[in-house]
Amino acid sequence: MSALKIHPSVDGGVQAGKAGFSGGTLVCKCKDNQVTVQLAGDVAFNHVCGCTKCWKPQGATFSMVAVIPRDKLKVTANAQKLKIVDESAAIQRYACTGCGVHMYGRIENKNHPFYGFDFVHTELSSDQGWAAPEFAAFVSSIIESGYKPDGMGEVRSRLNELGLTPYDCLSPTLMDLIATHTAKAKGVLAA
Amino acid sequence: MSALKIHPSVDGGVQAGKAGFSGGTLVCKCKDNQVTVQLAGDVAFNHVCGCTKCWKPQGATFSMVAVIPRDKLKVTANAQKLKIVDESAAIQRYACTGCGVHMYGRIENKNHPFYGFDFVHTELSSDQGWAAPEFAAFVSSIIESGYKPDGMGEVRSRLNELGLTPYDCLSPTLMDLIATHTAKAKGVLAA
Repeated sequence: MSALKIHPSVDGGVQAGKAGFSGGTLVCKCKDNQVTVQLAGDVAFNHVCGCTKCWKPQGATFSMVAVIPRDKLKVTANAQKLKIVDESAAIQRYACTGCGVHMYGRIENKNHPFYGFDFVHTELSSDQGWAAPEFAAFVSSIIESGYKPDGMGEVRSRLNELGLTPYDCLSPTLMDLIATHTAKAKGVLAA
Repeated sequence: MSALKIHPSVDGGVQAGKAGFSGGTLVCKCKDNQVTVQLAGDVAFNHVCGCTKCWKPQGATFSMVAVIPRDKLKVTANAQKLKIVDESAAIQRYACTGCGVHMYGRIENKNHPFYGFDFVHTELSSDQGWAAPEFAAFVSSIIESGYKPDGMGEVRSRLNELGLTPYDCLSPTLMDLIATHTAKAKGVLAA
């Protein structure tokens, strides 16, 4: 195992998901009165992310985050402990005020390209079979959290070794989706 | 030659630059009273770019753009024909009011990561030996100009074939430079 820590869920190798996996429960890290969130289905576009906004576990260089349709997500216990980290952010992250973990992120702007999808961290679930991370997003942004710039070659090389192609924005599929959304909004492409 | 048009300067294959090339003159496309811009040195970070803001020739899918230190750029004729396209843009593009070509783009914000560099299109020069384009930036953005989303796989494959690795933002080197600049501005890294 490389000494370079990407994220505990992938540092030992990326675990494949289970086809037809039907979901599970996310649990915060509090000792009692845990917040629980039920996901009625598998996630999509799971990836590790270098941005400075998403929650990540202690010692990890990247977060790991995926999406699920918002109607498949339900807070099932201790919702009163959740608080939005930054109301002005495009993605409103609901953090547990006890342990600080982000239980989900929600977009309320109906014009946002990803409206309808919530952002979740499957590592908060003990259920096995979640769709595996597929790529690495916003890699250069780890520098903004203090990662040394001259170590970036090594980071990208390790990500490639893990099968997590590094991008400094989102993946081409998602970037194309965003551009298509923008083109339709501008009337450049038919809606 | 592929039927897919990227940019006339690369569609027949990317031409290597000349080591130690010492610069040349950019000329606008007017029939007379041409604007001329003298570059006292070679350009750097030349690339094709899919963004919607840069000038590109008729029929091209991408622009081709590079940078040069601002003190190496001098307008040498008909400066009175130049006008800034959008004063509020981070890069102020000086276009010829006769033919519409952008002669150079300049950043006036001293806190911008690329402050000190002007943006130029070497195809406006008949001098041979300019540094060759090295990668493709903002590829997904061509969709915002109306490129059909289901043709993007073919575009990225053609760019790879030409040796112009496609990115949906800038290249890793430049993205790391930007992140480093941001980290220093935030005090996360030593300035």
